[in-house]
Amino acid sequence: MITDKKNVAIIGRGNVGTHLSRSLSSKVYVTVVNPHTLAELTGTEDIILISVSDAALPEVAGNLASHIHAKCNPIVAHTSGTTPMDVLSGLDVPYGVFYPMQTFSKDVDLNYADIPMFIEGSDAEVSDVLMDLAGLFSDHVHYADSEKRRKLHIGSVFACNFANHLWTLSEKWLKENGLDFSMMHALIRETTRKALSNSPASVQTGPARRHDAPTIKSHLKMLEGNPQLHDIYIMLTDSIENSYHE
Amino acid sequence: MITDKKNVAIIGRGNVGTHLSRSLSSKVYVTVVNPHTLAELTGTEDIILISVSDAALPEVAGNLASHIHAKCNPIVAHTSGTTPMDVLSGLDVPYGVFYPMQTFSKDVDLNYADIPMFIEGSDAEVSDVLMDLAGLFSDHVHYADSEKRRKLHIGSVFACNFANHLWTLSEKWLKENGLDFSMMHALIRETTRKALSNSPASVQTGPARRHDAPTIKSHLKMLEGNPQLHDIYIMLTDSIENSYHE
Repeated sequence: MITDKKNVAIIGRGNVGTHLSRSLSSKVYVTVVNPHTLAELTGTEDIILISVSDAALPEVAGNLASHIHAKCNPIVAHTSGTTPMDVLSGLDVPYGVFYPMQTFSKDVDLNYADIPMFIEGSDAEVSDVLMDLAGLFSDHVHYADSEKRRKLHIGSVFACNFANHLWTLSEKWLKENGLDFSMMHALIRETTRKALSNSPASVQTGPARRHDAPTIKSHLKMLEGNPQLHDIYIMLTDSIENSYHE
Repeated sequence: MITDKKNVAIIGRGNVGTHLSRSLSSKVYVTVVNPHTLAELTGTEDIILISVSDAALPEVAGNLASHIHAKCNPIVAHTSGTTPMDVLSGLDVPYGVFYPMQTFSKDVDLNYADIPMFIEGSDAEVSDVLMDLAGLFSDHVHYADSEKRRKLHIGSVFACNFANHLWTLSEKWLKENGLDFSMMHALIRETTRKALSNSPASVQTGPARRHDAPTIKSHLKMLEGNPQLHDIYIMLTDSIENSYHE
């Protein structure tokens, strides 16, 4: 249990850092820290969360070493889905991972209680502290080692990032043809509802699912002038057809 | 306006035919007709809806000719998103299209009022009758010629069929790794909510969107044993990266 308000520094002002700072701000003392200077660190932090890109993580972790006051002994955790926890092992303090599996946009509010949090710690005590911190806003706190977390992250790239990109391509296609993406809203809502109340595999529909060759051919002909859509159409159609060949 | 209850025959017992019959059954007299025999046709139909695969449409339309009683002069319409209206022009009766843009699974109920309906008719009177019929259950009835309807259909394949397939791949990947797809539910719900209340292009997140090369490399390494996921990951990552190169 966290009995008194912790000091938490969040390094990074990206989508994740911004939302973590909002989700925690009423529960702990939050300082947001510039990753390039680390100037806002005071040495009194109980927990330091590094929320920068995976590419920047090793450098920020390296620079952090000289800013950590040994007597303070903070817990340092990163928020990445993919980078192993051990990127922080050189810091000589307890360390861990504080990974929120959600899609964050700075300007879009969301219900923090719904965010699945995946925690890892360099020892059991660290895990407990980080799980308590996550539990301050999230109703879904799980332990996950680096391997499991990376697998979840890959699953989320397909389920979230790639699905959203297909909606983006649909929107672009319709716009180029003078049509409004809002015409797709009812369809997308129902697709999501069906996929979440069943297994998505069991509610797959469309030309590829029913092996409807004339429709597929007609669509590909219409997409000839658009190589991006044309090639993605072929690859995903093949993937669906191959998934239902039993 | 439809002033008295019409006789409507629906040829086909697939996902679309089944749901159209449910959506109309309290508003008109519905007969469901076996597309292989057309035996249930009585000659008293006001409207005949052909709801079979695009591949089967020409043959069913051809067979229908000998079952249509000239004095009855029914309207014949198909429900395909892609096949041009003129596949029915040989029938020597008024004809049109009655296309519901929705994902139908026989065992999944849905709110028929929300289904966007796209109508086309061989003349204005036919369009009116079919739009009235659609209006009996749908709050979103539009006119769309064959070209526009096919463009919408392509948009819906990306927005619905392909997005659902990515959820299927995510589910399969997690299952193979001993993880449960329900862990993705909150993420998918939020992804959908964001995409529908904004433009999906503006809320794209993930490794490809932020050009996070180390994460992408790490994911591809982990997917090496799974060529289906590996190749789709590369293609959609490239497509996202190319979409945000401004």
